[in-house]
Amino acid sequence: MRLIFIGDVVGSLGREMVHEYLPKIKKQFKPQISILNGENAAAGRGITEKIYKNFLQDGVDIVTMGNHTWDNKDIFEFIDGANKLIRPANFPEETTPGKGIAYIKINQHELAVINLHGRTFMSDVDDPFKKADLLIAEAEKRTSHIFVDFHAETTSEKQAMGWYLDGRVSAVVGTHTHVQTNDARILPQGTAYLTDVGMTGPYDAILGMKREQVLRKFLTQLPTRFEVPKEGRQLLSACFIELDDVTGRAKKIEPFMINEDRPFGLDY
Amino acid sequence: MRLIFIGDVVGSLGREMVHEYLPKIKKQFKPQISILNGENAAAGRGITEKIYKNFLQDGVDIVTMGNHTWDNKDIFEFIDGANKLIRPANFPEETTPGKGIAYIKINQHELAVINLHGRTFMSDVDDPFKKADLLIAEAEKRTSHIFVDFHAETTSEKQAMGWYLDGRVSAVVGTHTHVQTNDARILPQGTAYLTDVGMTGPYDAILGMKREQVLRKFLTQLPTRFEVPKEGRQLLSACFIELDDVTGRAKKIEPFMINEDRPFGLDY
Amino acid sequence: MRLIFIGDVVGSLGREMVHEYLPKIKKQFKPQISILNGENAAAGRGITEKIYKNFLQDGVDIVTMGNHTWDNKDIFEFIDGANKLIRPANFPEETTPGKGIAYIKINQHELAVINLHGRTFMSDVDDPFKKADLLIAEAEKRTSHIFVDFHAETTSEKQAMGWYLDGRVSAVVGTHTHVQTNDARILPQGTAYLTDVGMTGPYDAILGMKREQVLRKFLTQLPTRFEVPKEGRQLLSACFIELDDVTGRAKKIEPFMINEDRPFGLDY
Amino acid sequence: MRLIFIGDVVGSLGREMVHEYLPKIKKQFKPQISILNGENAAAGRGITEKIYKNFLQDGVDIVTMGNHTWDNKDIFEFIDGANKLIRPANFPEETTPGKGIAYIKINQHELAVINLHGRTFMSDVDDPFKKADLLIAEAEKRTSHIFVDFHAETTSEKQAMGWYLDGRVSAVVGTHTHVQTNDARILPQGTAYLTDVGMTGPYDAILGMKREQVLRKFLTQLPTRFEVPKEGRQLLSACFIELDDVTGRAKKIEPFMINEDRPFGLDY
Ligand SMILES: [Fe+2]
Ligand SMILES: [Fe+2]
Ligand SMILES: [Fe+2]
Ligand SMILES: [Fe+2]
Ligand SMILES: [Fe+2]
Ligand SMILES: [Fe+2]
Ligand SMILES: [Fe+2]
Ligand SMILES: [Fe+2]
Repeated sequence: MRLIFIGDVVGSLGREMVHEYLPKIKKQFKPQISILNGENAAAGRGITEKIYKNFLQDGVDIVTMGNHTWDNKDIFEFIDGANKLIRPANFPEETTPGKGIAYIKINQHELAVINLHGRTFMSDVDDPFKKADLLIAEAEKRTSHIFVDFHAETTSEKQAMGWYLDGRVSAVVGTHTHVQTNDARILPQGTAYLTDVGMTGPYDAILGMKREQVLRKFLTQLPTRFEVPKEGRQLLSACFIELDDVTGRAKKIEPFMINEDRPFGLDY
Repeated sequence: MRLIFIGDVVGSLGREMVHEYLPKIKKQFKPQISILNGENAAAGRGITEKIYKNFLQDGVDIVTMGNHTWDNKDIFEFIDGANKLIRPANFPEETTPGKGIAYIKINQHELAVINLHGRTFMSDVDDPFKKADLLIAEAEKRTSHIFVDFHAETTSEKQAMGWYLDGRVSAVVGTHTHVQTNDARILPQGTAYLTDVGMTGPYDAILGMKREQVLRKFLTQLPTRFEVPKEGRQLLSACFIELDDVTGRAKKIEPFMINEDRPFGLDY
Repeated sequence: MRLIFIGDVVGSLGREMVHEYLPKIKKQFKPQISILNGENAAAGRGITEKIYKNFLQDGVDIVTMGNHTWDNKDIFEFIDGANKLIRPANFPEETTPGKGIAYIKINQHELAVINLHGRTFMSDVDDPFKKADLLIAEAEKRTSHIFVDFHAETTSEKQAMGWYLDGRVSAVVGTHTHVQTNDARILPQGTAYLTDVGMTGPYDAILGMKREQVLRKFLTQLPTRFEVPKEGRQLLSACFIELDDVTGRAKKIEPFMINEDRPFGLDY
Repeated sequence: MRLIFIGDVVGSLGREMVHEYLPKIKKQFKPQISILNGENAAAGRGITEKIYKNFLQDGVDIVTMGNHTWDNKDIFEFIDGANKLIRPANFPEETTPGKGIAYIKINQHELAVINLHGRTFMSDVDDPFKKADLLIAEAEKRTSHIFVDFHAETTSEKQAMGWYLDGRVSAVVGTHTHVQTNDARILPQGTAYLTDVGMTGPYDAILGMKREQVLRKFLTQLPTRFEVPKEGRQLLSACFIELDDVTGRAKKIEPFMINEDRPFGLDY
């Protein structure tokens, strides 16, 4: 099984990149399933139904989310009907709309996609490690192909999750920091791991936000509105993963970025 | 001017990697100056005089530090005489031993090396942006070659520093997260930038600490002693930077990692 | 039912105060049950079996704990046999020794004592609100007298817990900040509430730690060992609560402190 | 010299309490100077010029602020002309409008009022201890009567400031947690100290915000809008301080609260 995962899509510049490059990426990598983190798709904050549907139209199979899931109120209207969208599974069980795991069938193989949320330097959600145990136990009844998007801040919590799930899932990739890490590897028991896939959107901004605004915040400590630039150079961050069709364990993980400094298609 | 920077060296496994590979790296990249972050060199916590001197003997020119600077008490004994070691410059001015900037002359060119400490999710040190302004003003009187090791937790604070200093220094590289990022680039005004160089030490641990201990902490929330493994596979994370001899602006930045999955010398 | 609760006992000066004043307090207030938070009893960090037993000998009926529960390793040896000691109930279920609820019978009435741990600016324990729901459901089967020690940092989380449990428990008192608050009240549905009971120990220290050490930390940002002074003026912080014997709802809550500025026995 | 300080005034219910009770408080305590923390006066978030002027009309002499200083944009329009309003002095020097110290003359005596901002669990402002040193050095040239409103989260940082300034200022009182503490005392060198004065506004809310909203946030971790109730029972938190006219050292500190449970005028 061949997968593409595209990291945190930020604003219109990010959505444009998906629209333009996902077809090319598919041509190049021939993934059977394409997953994308859409927590910042609507102007940096959450996602709307329209954007979600456009992603599906662009060829995305599953959309994952993160701490920004609820920023755009539109989500509360459509999440329960959006069966290709998952939000972090370890939000409190009884009060959280939507779901944290989705299944997608490709030929005779099924992939479980799980979305989890870190806690270190983040909000007080439920234990992501225990939630992972529960969801994996559920998913294992259907498939040995399990993909985890762990949306977390620190490298320690993400590496901990990678090692915790090694041999039990196909891949653990991180999102949230908006910067792709260079540590892609296959852990000893067969789980593909990458601390962060990075973001998709403005290339000359700070985590996708206008840099003069972010700098103003750091320099003055005054409240500052952060906005997503709508023009300028763009970036797409993603990773390609190949799984053994029988065992579900990873055979390959290959992160890549597309931007003016790294034009598409040259180095794969 | 050609530079090598080696990221957070953790424990004996990290020191061994420096000892073994720095000569080979020098052969390959022919750097005139080698810098290394040594904040975790002594069993993960700080540095001793002996380790510091061994680094110099191994061919390191300047040692930078971070939040772990003071973990090994030995530092208070030797830091004032250690003119090749710098600690974050934005510790409080009057009470902090040591210094946060060092100069090194190579032929007719001089390099200023600055060490700064982030604040987001870290301790309450002085403003690193303002401190950067002051130190750059000082350094500029002597040289246009300025290298900054920004030891910080978040991608936002690090990217902000990169953009803040773009065109004013030769390079801003991050340390502290222990995971190399894949976003090396030369910013529009000529400053080489990398969010994090990554760590040097145990390859199968969590940020260099025994993974069963770190996992125990996440899973149980009980106090847990973190120790550095003394055996097992190893990793070296570094980056090569080339500067224009006249302007000091960056011509090239090239991060690399050495480990069993990425053996040395294959892909440069 | 009449209760005394003594806030975080810190080190030998704190233990001395309990030994000296608990008998006098009992004489004055005639409580049927005396509860004490002992998380800092052993030199500021945790508790030992000897100290625990001395507390019982001094007339304490139940000892509660907090974030420092595990600081003194002795706890792991004796907690499972210590049926008068409880630790925060919302530590992870399967891996935490000890228990988070205890019952004590006084004549024909039983009191359930629950210990909970906050999350805001604290470690990532389980949801204290949900845990409270579960434990109250359990306790209600036996008694309508339920006392909660909520060990938490922020006033917001503590007030939230007070209001959340109003009418469902007899009292919610906070611990952890080591400073008694002046907001004791009976909430509209009958629950006695106090944001923090305050600490018992050194009176001229900072939260019970030597003030030159704590100041050094704030002023220098250097690692500093915090120690409990063994001499000097002392403080005891406590609160008296009276419940309706039938309904278990609170009739009275009266915090008090004993120190040189507020000698015992004058103002009650 | 006799002073009244009223803690964080929250929304219209808080402003009403000031309007109604400040005259009565003045009649009772006969303060020569009245100070009030107004950081939450405008619907919980910042202050407007109109509210500021109404405070002056109500008999307030100096308004202090805190982390919410900039929440209502109106402040940027009027702060530079508002010479009776101060904001935390340790916001970055060059970029922050307004000032952090004010002087007020009463007969032949002058009082310096200083506003400082904590850092622990708060934003990355400049060192409040160093800023205190600077401002005290300045104020001492004019007067030995110096009042400090230290707007900070933790009891440790506040107690540290109290002890740090003991004998150098007349009083250090804390604000920000919205809960009055019960630890008012005169420190050994003559500085009046109170960890937190508490808030003025809704009595049955959580820190002045609608409790169902705050509870929703804790229980669901979903984004929640916090609003100030406009109706319901009210609370005023304040403290009275008396200084020696010659030395400026404190002779008395007496916190009090006014609400339905503690009607005005009974216990002084
Ligand atoms: Fe994101
Ligand atoms: Fe995120
Ligand atoms: Fe490090
Ligand atoms: Fe570090
Ligand atoms: Fe405590
Ligand atoms: Fe505590
Ligand atoms: Fe406030
Ligand atoms: Fe505040």
